[in-house]
Amino acid sequence: MAFDKVKRSENYSEWYNNLVKNADLAEHSAVKGCMVIKPYGYAIWEKIQQQLDKMFKETGHSNAYFPLFVPKSLFEKEEKNAEGFAKECAVVTHYRLKANPDKPGALMVDPDSKLEEELVVRPTSEAIIWNTYKNWIQSYRDLPILVNQWANVVRWEMRTRLFLRTAEFLWQEGHTAHATKEEALEETKKMLDVYATFAEEFMAVPVIRGVKSENERFAGADDTYCIEGMMQDGKALQMGTSHFLGQNFAKAFDVKFQTKEGKLEYVWATSWGVSTRLMGALIMVHSDDEGLVLPPKLAPIHVVIVPVYKNDEEFERVSAKALEIKKTLETLGLSVKFDNRDTYKPGYKFAEWELKGVPVRIALGPRDLDNGVAEIARRDEKTKTSVSLDSLHEYVPNLLNEIQINLFEKANAFQKLKTWNANNWEEFTEIVEKREGFAFAHWDGTAETEEKIKELTKATIRCIPFDRDETPGTDVLSGKPSIGRVLFAKAY
Amino acid sequence: MAFDKVKRSENYSEWYNNLVKNADLAEHSAVKGCMVIKPYGYAIWEKIQQQLDKMFKETGHSNAYFPLFVPKSLFEKEEKNAEGFAKECAVVTHYRLKANPDKPGALMVDPDSKLEEELVVRPTSEAIIWNTYKNWIQSYRDLPILVNQWANVVRWEMRTRLFLRTAEFLWQEGHTAHATKEEALEETKKMLDVYATFAEEFMAVPVIRGVKSENERFAGADDTYCIEGMMQDGKALQMGTSHFLGQNFAKAFDVKFQTKEGKLEYVWATSWGVSTRLMGALIMVHSDDEGLVLPPKLAPIHVVIVPVYKNDEEFERVSAKALEIKKTLETLGLSVKFDNRDTYKPGYKFAEWELKGVPVRIALGPRDLDNGVAEIARRDEKTKTSVSLDSLHEYVPNLLNEIQINLFEKANAFQKLKTWNANNWEEFTEIVEKREGFAFAHWDGTAETEEKIKELTKATIRCIPFDRDETPGTDVLSGKPSIGRVLFAKAY
Repeated sequence: MAFDKVKRSENYSEWYNNLVKNADLAEHSAVKGCMVIKPYGYAIWEKIQQQLDKMFKETGHSNAYFPLFVPKSLFEKEEKNAEGFAKECAVVTHYRLKANPDKPGALMVDPDSKLEEELVVRPTSEAIIWNTYKNWIQSYRDLPILVNQWANVVRWEMRTRLFLRTAEFLWQEGHTAHATKEEALEETKKMLDVYATFAEEFMAVPVIRGVKSENERFAGADDTYCIEGMMQDGKALQMGTSHFLGQNFAKAFDVKFQTKEGKLEYVWATSWGVSTRLMGALIMVHSDDEGLVLPPKLAPIHVVIVPVYKNDEEFERVSAKALEIKKTLETLGLSVKFDNRDTYKPGYKFAEWELKGVPVRIALGPRDLDNGVAEIARRDEKTKTSVSLDSLHEYVPNLLNEIQINLFEKANAFQKLKTWNANNWEEFTEIVEKREGFAFAHWDGTAETEEKIKELTKATIRCIPFDRDETPGTDVLSGKPSIGRVLFAKAY
Repeated sequence: MAFDKVKRSENYSEWYNNLVKNADLAEHSAVKGCMVIKPYGYAIWEKIQQQLDKMFKETGHSNAYFPLFVPKSLFEKEEKNAEGFAKECAVVTHYRLKANPDKPGALMVDPDSKLEEELVVRPTSEAIIWNTYKNWIQSYRDLPILVNQWANVVRWEMRTRLFLRTAEFLWQEGHTAHATKEEALEETKKMLDVYATFAEEFMAVPVIRGVKSENERFAGADDTYCIEGMMQDGKALQMGTSHFLGQNFAKAFDVKFQTKEGKLEYVWATSWGVSTRLMGALIMVHSDDEGLVLPPKLAPIHVVIVPVYKNDEEFERVSAKALEIKKTLETLGLSVKFDNRDTYKPGYKFAEWELKGVPVRIALGPRDLDNGVAEIARRDEKTKTSVSLDSLHEYVPNLLNEIQINLFEKANAFQKLKTWNANNWEEFTEIVEKREGFAFAHWDGTAETEEKIKELTKATIRCIPFDRDETPGTDVLSGKPSIGRVLFAKAY
């Protein structure tokens, strides 16, 4: 493979960029900050989408679609939300181009097409959606509204990284409306749990669930719940957020409903989202110096069969058996690729499919056929075994399950290994700066201390874990009293 | 139902608008020209998407994602394409908002955030995609590229109609690259056939396949193939297009490949798309004065079960059976809704599910249970039959098949009934203006005559059908020689 190998241990960031490029996942585009998601990368995103969509529907949600543009006057209605996103808004000001009289063949913005009111390209859709919900909600009978949208959003970014931080990204955003605070809080928690289950059971990424500090809260929310995963460089990545929006948007957009008792009350809201950022997490948690490692549940190709042969006759013989195996495994619901290209040697193909993270590789040569076996290689551990052809229909599905579990367990063990309690400032800096891991530390609860810690170490409060240690203590920096430990780490 | 009934025969356009609104399919948003697709409407779109996506993958295509924005300098590269879309482009000129010093709480565009180069919100993605393909294609080994994208696009429209013509719409756009003209032409045709198959077998809408005249061709294409359906008002609706782009984009973006023989040649291209406009066709072809009529293959709910009861005891008894039927039918892969709301009477529910176009309704009361039957109503013909409970598992799937076929046959018969050969100008105007139908008429092949006919009658050439009558004749307006008939109609 023409693959510029960069070792994780040498330059993690360059390793990541190289991998995304070489495994054909995504690339930068001609538009600053916007990426092209290539077919192989998009196929993984489709697996993510399909599973999440299923889980959303199983929890009672329906999909809908709301406009890409938000008129400025609506955008600014919920002030905190507007303030939070104002600095990264792409703005449409005109609706026509015309021929440039000074430059034949070139176009220019037609000044006569200036919009009376500018349109913000949605950085998130609360404003446009709550302005719509206003007309959908009159009575308690209209509640709850449980809607999700799969869409693109734009948040102008100067420093971008493929999947992790791009100006345009793909995501889903759930927007729900409820009659009571309790129900909205329950929904906020439920959807965080959906994300956590997805992360752990499908992405094989263990996550810490918790609440954001006020500093890190979504603009316009009363509370933001999140799941945080640990990457192989010990940094945290926020993988999903679920926001309890209180009545903030209902008040900003004047959305009231009549209760059973005939009173008029403001509606309670939640919103929750995950994005193509998950691709970044998936890549960073499991992959190695040879390339991508995919958990079987999200792999577009589960098994690749590579024929090993010297001549046409051998190729025909091996092909016949390979196609038979392919068919058998496909019957079991697996996605199987038979790599019968005659332009590349087996070694090249092995490296290519390793780079692309296909969980299981079957190599098949004439001698294997004579012995009634195939050589099975697993991507996660890079081990090879000779397996009887007759048992492949059992061996391969079992192996895929095993790989799925193994990836989670490895990631989980790594996270545990790199997580410590920090009991004083020295331990804290040692953990987040030298050992590069997660620190559970006491915090005095003030934004001031939080900011100071960030300034000094670049570590931020990732969350106040739901299951945190609530033994009281003293803040690692300020020494002031603390009611329990919170999770600190450097983050993407 | 609080459903302002408007009869098709009285005001077709108002009937359509009312139906879209009352069946909860879509509504206008606060953003001029942009629609909100409501959950029920979106569920139908999802069925459309899933089926098309399957057909694209079966024909070898993969999905990918390209940026929403197109830098103006790229957008203008293919001159005809740019010229064709320039007048309807939303343009992003700034990337930041800031507090408005004159208006507390309000925001304004930050003049310091003006972009050096304006970004066009994609009206179609040929430019950004071919600028990307340039880097993907070096050799014949890199071809063909068979990529599709599901995305939103924006074409600024002053006069909009839900689904039929909106500033923002959802669509898919296939963009393929080929080594030879023949292969690209074959792909253009193949994808038109996929669209036609989808329209006829899933939407139950008969279509006429053909080539557009130069006037109606996609800007930047050498040829545009299309499928045209007939709505119930006799107007045509273009339901899908497949473009043979020749080497136009390859030349504009300098995309060459090395042939097997080592020569450098420009790449051949196609693009093809269908959009949420299909929703408009689906609604307009089958629906009636009672509401939506959906072909079973695209109905989010196949069967609704409505309990008929007088007291709790009856309700329990009927419910038990209803849930049993639901389970049985779901095992067969059908989507079944048991409408157990106690806030509405059966009559109201009947009307509501008719409005929403659910193909089959099962009404179930205690007397039915005593007799071992259920009342089955089919939405397409509005007929009711008493059916033995023991045979529902056979009766219902058969009925759904029958409805699917019946809808196609009715639409087909209607199209045939409203299609005539026009042999002179009098017949022509009689057909397109009075009888309001499709006219196969001779055309001299000039854009001039085409424009004149449009001016005089509002009828346009919908296509030159692939299977047209090629008996020579004389143009209905100019009297000049014609090599065959083309399809004229008023169109959406």
